[in-house]
Amino acid sequence: MAKDKKLVEEITSMDVDFAQWYTDVVKKAELISYSSIRGCMIFRPLGYALWENIQSELDRRFKETGVENVYLPMFIPESLLNKEKEHVEGFAPEVAWVTHGGGNELQERMCVRPTSETLFCDFYKDVIESHRDLPKVYNQWCSVVRWEKTTRPFLRSMEFLWQEGHTAHATAEEAEERTIQMLNLYADFVEEVLAIPLIKGRKTDKEKFAGAIATYTIEAMMHDGKALQSGTSHNFGDGFAKAFGIQYTSKDNKLEYVHQTSWGVSTRIIGAIIMVHGDDSGLVLPPRIAPTQVVIVPIRQKAEGVLDKANELLTALTEAGISAKVDDSDKSPGWKFAEHEMKGVPVRIEVGPKDIENGVCVAVRRDNREKTEVKLDNVADSVKVILDTMQKDMFERAKKHRDENIYTATEYDEFKEIIDTKPGFVKAMWCGDLECEEKIKEDTTATSRCMPFGENAISDRCICCGKPAKHLVIWGKAY
Amino acid sequence: MAKDKKLVEEITSMDVDFAQWYTDVVKKAELISYSSIRGCMIFRPLGYALWENIQSELDRRFKETGVENVYLPMFIPESLLNKEKEHVEGFAPEVAWVTHGGGNELQERMCVRPTSETLFCDFYKDVIESHRDLPKVYNQWCSVVRWEKTTRPFLRSMEFLWQEGHTAHATAEEAEERTIQMLNLYADFVEEVLAIPLIKGRKTDKEKFAGAIATYTIEAMMHDGKALQSGTSHNFGDGFAKAFGIQYTSKDNKLEYVHQTSWGVSTRIIGAIIMVHGDDSGLVLPPRIAPTQVVIVPIRQKAEGVLDKANELLTALTEAGISAKVDDSDKSPGWKFAEHEMKGVPVRIEVGPKDIENGVCVAVRRDNREKTEVKLDNVADSVKVILDTMQKDMFERAKKHRDENIYTATEYDEFKEIIDTKPGFVKAMWCGDLECEEKIKEDTTATSRCMPFGENAISDRCICCGKPAKHLVIWGKAY
Repeated sequence: MAKDKKLVEEITSMDVDFAQWYTDVVKKAELISYSSIRGCMIFRPLGYALWENIQSELDRRFKETGVENVYLPMFIPESLLNKEKEHVEGFAPEVAWVTHGGGNELQERMCVRPTSETLFCDFYKDVIESHRDLPKVYNQWCSVVRWEKTTRPFLRSMEFLWQEGHTAHATAEEAEERTIQMLNLYADFVEEVLAIPLIKGRKTDKEKFAGAIATYTIEAMMHDGKALQSGTSHNFGDGFAKAFGIQYTSKDNKLEYVHQTSWGVSTRIIGAIIMVHGDDSGLVLPPRIAPTQVVIVPIRQKAEGVLDKANELLTALTEAGISAKVDDSDKSPGWKFAEHEMKGVPVRIEVGPKDIENGVCVAVRRDNREKTEVKLDNVADSVKVILDTMQKDMFERAKKHRDENIYTATEYDEFKEIIDTKPGFVKAMWCGDLECEEKIKEDTTATSRCMPFGENAISDRCICCGKPAKHLVIWGKAY
Repeated sequence: MAKDKKLVEEITSMDVDFAQWYTDVVKKAELISYSSIRGCMIFRPLGYALWENIQSELDRRFKETGVENVYLPMFIPESLLNKEKEHVEGFAPEVAWVTHGGGNELQERMCVRPTSETLFCDFYKDVIESHRDLPKVYNQWCSVVRWEKTTRPFLRSMEFLWQEGHTAHATAEEAEERTIQMLNLYADFVEEVLAIPLIKGRKTDKEKFAGAIATYTIEAMMHDGKALQSGTSHNFGDGFAKAFGIQYTSKDNKLEYVHQTSWGVSTRIIGAIIMVHGDDSGLVLPPRIAPTQVVIVPIRQKAEGVLDKANELLTALTEAGISAKVDDSDKSPGWKFAEHEMKGVPVRIEVGPKDIENGVCVAVRRDNREKTEVKLDNVADSVKVILDTMQKDMFERAKKHRDENIYTATEYDEFKEIIDTKPGFVKAMWCGDLECEEKIKEDTTATSRCMPFGENAISDRCICCGKPAKHLVIWGKAY
């Protein structure tokens, strides 16, 4: 039976044009539709199901650490946004303003939240009085709006979905601890569930969040060697507390300012799943995040007993907690193979009259096309093993790719040459001055991704100016 | 031990002032905080947890009927909103307009979605081509904005959370079937899980959704006899399809318009939970929707073994799938009783040194204060029975209250007197003319709630004009 290649031929090869490959996959896998609103995307069922799975797994992990969910308004009055100086400078240029409502011009315009620090501060000011009210460890799932000039599905759009956690603590130590705890929670989730290896570290002052004293990040390397910031966790110290007057009475009856954090992961992470794992046949979904883990394709489905057997397998898989479906549409098997490969379904099961006679079916892995003959009466256990192995292999493959594309440089010419000619990250030392960071960006278009945790110095001089070095930095071009 | 009444004394009695009682409960039970944005509410952890439970249960039921979730943009360009005439007339006066973004004035202003029919139509126009693409049964969970002059927590606010389902079908019959299917799904959910008895029926033309050919509703009676519309399901026929050009190629290769529906339930329903079940001690949550079903209050918690036993009970309950927690704060037991009663926790378990000696603890139902002595080694099974019984009793109590407050009238004077003097609903016949419906509203402030399914005529004349009657209508004052 000839495999129907039409669907696959419609997408650009990733080695020919990675950006076009990405756009093609997003569209052909039916993750996203463009809407008639400039910069806004429509999440189609598969795109949204990925986000639902991310939500449910992250939310479970959040709640295990004591996080409670809340929901705050989507509008921020201009005067509230203006309360913390650095924050407003960071966000005011990119907000959408509501100026009219219910037929009248508003006395004070409101922006649609680009992030909700100011709203949480306004709320915490009202509900925190005593040390007994601390800590507050709240989170919300919502959409935010930031005016973007360019648009790329998942990676950059005017409106996107995310969660934003906002916490208030009695002490600076507790705030720092929560900041790092959430960074680690994100990292574990992304590595274990999305099979994406990460580098954890701290952002430079230039790259940190507007209003934070420290921003921590998880950085992932895409297939094309570029970086994607996949989640951030910020320590605000007591800066917002002072701007908004969030004080509590301590155990020894003194008025103290709270210490705050915020942390977020957005639908950008779906872009990382696509760009880390995808191939020229489309999406490849890690089993632990795939909305459909197994698709059963009946071969000669009109032959007696074939559809019945397919549905029996479906029942066996579903009862074992595996998310599966039967594709009994009237398309050809080849067409179905291509379609479910495009949509990244981790395992395909083929079952036809001959297989049934022999008491077997064939399981095909999406990532490496490996075929396994599986006994019909043991399908759930066998498929579980295949899914687990595939999950591990996908992580290891991505890690190998990542590790092979990290370079070190101690001389600026070498540094520039690597950035210019090789996809990937470069480790190099930095003096800590903004000027060098800006010069590197100007010379190479690479930015500082982070100062990674637990790495040793590789030289004592700044890669750019030659002055004494303060930090090891991971540099790379980024989405 | 004297029960601490302070918390309870702070709320107004429901018989003295029901509206004030409602506001007090919402605030004291920490469901909602007012924000500094006029008309916008903050959902605090308990308020949002109720919504999360509603979401997860409804979403599960949706998916069983083939619903897929998507997410569409929050903005609607003015020209798109204007495409369906009745629809824009219904919504344009109450929208919020974004006129500036990214520092510039927009060429075309956009409203924040008050509902998303126009966006779904614009989307369906692009993705529906053939009968193979039908039906589309999509839903989204999101927030919407409608400019309101007055504000009441959950019942009326500028921004609220909801789900909106939007479907497209090949035939009118299929669309009508889906409209009724979703109405029934809502009704089952509200009766089974929220323990609120309902009246299902059709809205009059005056009360139907802007752009629908038929709107169906579930109507609930609050403790004060007023009605709360708790969910609606609309059949649009092919009106939107014609306005937006949503056509498909049928099996016999003809171009046909699709038939559409939409249906929604919002955070208003939390207002119904409060107003149907609450009492003068605060919230009373039906066990099947309560975020915490059981609170364990240790008595003399510093005595040896008491906290250990409380935590043992917690483990036993949790393992049995019951959502429970131990309140080991340093407040007095009486204070804890009042606090958890205010928050509506269905069952309180008291356990102290004497109980432990006797191998028992005491379970107290929130709704009727009934106390049951429960054996410590059988706590989960006993509590399950109590929770189930309480759920049934709450529904029956609400149903009795509802049934006792439905009247029938065949003369207009009698009708007006009932509406004027008795809380509740009145059944009366109607000729079908808008003028009579408007006169009744003017004379009594009561509105037509619905034309209930499966009810027999009680007279052959219109209650208002005396002309031949067409429909039995449920009339009532409404939130």
